[in-house]
Amino acid sequence: MKFIEGGVAAAKGFKAAGIHCGIRKNASKKDLALIVSDVSASAAAVYTTNLVKGAPLLVTMENLKDGRARAIICNSGNANACNADGPEIAKKMCALVEKYTGIKSSNVIVASTGVIGKPLDIEPIGRGLPTLVKTLGPFSEAANEAIMTTDTVKKSLAISFEIGGKECRIGGIAKGSGMIHPNMATMLAFVTTDVKISPEMLQKAISEDVKSTFNMVSVDRDTSTNDMLSVMANGLAGNEEITEYGEDFDIFLKALHSVTAGLSKMIANDGEGASKLIIAEVWGAAAIEDARKAAKSVITSNLLKAAMFGSDANWGRVLCALGYSGANIDVNKIGVFFASAKGKIEVCKSGAGVSFSEDEAKIILSEKEITIVIDLNQGPFSATAWGCDLTYDYVRINGDYRT
Amino acid sequence: MKFIEGGVAAAKGFKAAGIHCGIRKNASKKDLALIVSDVSASAAAVYTTNLVKGAPLLVTMENLKDGRARAIICNSGNANACNADGPEIAKKMCALVEKYTGIKSSNVIVASTGVIGKPLDIEPIGRGLPTLVKTLGPFSEAANEAIMTTDTVKKSLAISFEIGGKECRIGGIAKGSGMIHPNMATMLAFVTTDVKISPEMLQKAISEDVKSTFNMVSVDRDTSTNDMLSVMANGLAGNEEITEYGEDFDIFLKALHSVTAGLSKMIANDGEGASKLIIAEVWGAAAIEDARKAAKSVITSNLLKAAMFGSDANWGRVLCALGYSGANIDVNKIGVFFASAKGKIEVCKSGAGVSFSEDEAKIILSEKEITIVIDLNQGPFSATAWGCDLTYDYVRINGDYRT
Repeated sequence: MKFIEGGVAAAKGFKAAGIHCGIRKNASKKDLALIVSDVSASAAAVYTTNLVKGAPLLVTMENLKDGRARAIICNSGNANACNADGPEIAKKMCALVEKYTGIKSSNVIVASTGVIGKPLDIEPIGRGLPTLVKTLGPFSEAANEAIMTTDTVKKSLAISFEIGGKECRIGGIAKGSGMIHPNMATMLAFVTTDVKISPEMLQKAISEDVKSTFNMVSVDRDTSTNDMLSVMANGLAGNEEITEYGEDFDIFLKALHSVTAGLSKMIANDGEGASKLIIAEVWGAAAIEDARKAAKSVITSNLLKAAMFGSDANWGRVLCALGYSGANIDVNKIGVFFASAKGKIEVCKSGAGVSFSEDEAKIILSEKEITIVIDLNQGPFSATAWGCDLTYDYVRINGDYRT
Repeated sequence: MKFIEGGVAAAKGFKAAGIHCGIRKNASKKDLALIVSDVSASAAAVYTTNLVKGAPLLVTMENLKDGRARAIICNSGNANACNADGPEIAKKMCALVEKYTGIKSSNVIVASTGVIGKPLDIEPIGRGLPTLVKTLGPFSEAANEAIMTTDTVKKSLAISFEIGGKECRIGGIAKGSGMIHPNMATMLAFVTTDVKISPEMLQKAISEDVKSTFNMVSVDRDTSTNDMLSVMANGLAGNEEITEYGEDFDIFLKALHSVTAGLSKMIANDGEGASKLIIAEVWGAAAIEDARKAAKSVITSNLLKAAMFGSDANWGRVLCALGYSGANIDVNKIGVFFASAKGKIEVCKSGAGVSFSEDEAKIILSEKEITIVIDLNQGPFSATAWGCDLTYDYVRINGDYRT
């Protein structure tokens, strides 16, 4: 299994493109992305659990009922959520893809990201599509740029691996910086692969995978209305179709996980206003769900996030967050360490503080990537969650997002 | 029912005091409070639901098993939580009260607030107690000051009312500014009354009351380890003892609610770094629990809080927060208004945006107290939650709290 170039267009038979069509005022910001497969692909997706769902998600759910898709269209600058004409506009986006590519509109995955509650004008999208189709190619950057909102870096990853002697590829792009607290769903992430796999097994793979990847990321505990992860698998790798659990499925799951875990970490690292990536590693939980709850609770605590911003070894806030996490924990068994490239320091043992050097802790916590290692000492399960610190810039960015 | 002076010492037979004993380095900050009743009182309390509980709470639970108390001792500057010797120190605090007042240590409510995980030195408390006892009087200010941490204003309230022709009084003080997200409990609030009421009915009264008062406040979604609301009722008003549900109980409940709701609002208004009080009023819910979940979800959204800081009428974030609140809602029925002393503006109707004047919205949202009115249009239930905006100062205060 090795990392390769190409992101969402790395797998055989996939092309991507991204342009500025005019949804965003700033002409230097791309705002429309298209990803297509040369042939029909198995397709699966997971969606936000927010009851308020963006119109594109509703249209995508309908289009994916048959487990097949060939294209993804996605705009940034407008979420097309909470608009009376939302579903109509989302359907028009699919129809425009059909008009200019010949791919049936019912085989199109549609997504939008940006401001909620502002009507989305279809006109610039119609105007931009011919150019978008013309610029489709085996590269990921432009599409990646076009789905960004407050993101400051592109998030793209691809790997190659083998199934049954056939070279397979899987790659993806993602966006997400604020309103990040996925719950059985994710921010926007589009993954493509040339693996041959049935729609049912593809859905099983991603539904299982998100529990330990995108669902373990949080920037601000706000679960978005437009979260979606979709995967298209077009089968061009030529492997024997995966239709059941087994060795091939396990290899695919592992490859998928490498891409989604990588993208998850990138999203947390690029959290709105973030100056540091915060990783919570929980060990020794009595059940996997306890490990996940505990890890997620720690990285979502505003107080802990602000302490990390200030490089303050305030481990009491870690214990506080564990205490209200809902996880089954025995307070008196908890151990806590802070770690980074500069070292690792024990701050809490058996639920009580141990004496440690504040100077050493400060040096460790001044790094850009901090790991909080928590040992619950109650069992064999572990989990990792990714978040970021809470900074002045988060407040600045979100104090006046719409203008 | 009228507002009176005297806070937690307003009711007949209660005295209070507060001094600097030396737990906090800054000698101008009081750090030790004592409240006593001349006679034994019915007593009840609710505690944090955090599994990590400060040692003083465990000792108080033990002491209140018989439903009686006569004194409260509380220090600030140190939470006495996650310390191996925590229970021992909390018991010593009670023993010191007995030594200098004669009130049995098992009749003492003990509380601590401040940094978690730092051993609490008993020495300054022992040294300070004689002075503390000497300065006990019918005033609330010093005790109120002594329980403050990052609070910027004192939070005190008292009212007088009648039960069965007898003048009764109830008053309280509270502290709380960060780590505020009570859950079936509260930050620190001490309420005293001279009403005669059985311990059982007193417990019923506060357990019911917190659901619509302290449990509807959130500053940062961090449920503290040391939250506690305690009430002492010493019966000196001379009313016939309240031992069952009925008219007298209802009057008491209403008086209690006036004090606790007032203190709740003061806590939200003084949220760490807050520049604005944010009130979410939810109407038209199908059940009371739905109304509460919806209101609380809105005032806890970091994104909405940051938008309020920026006076940005970003109502999409209100809908987003309603969508993930867990409340049973029909998105297509939701109406949203922003209101303040400067007016009221409709921004969302039937789940979709309505056109409104951004200039007018800006004027309304630039006030210090903003009400977000949400009509779910699904039933007769309503609820109110209190929160505050998310500001640069919240990050500053919490980036380096311990130093």
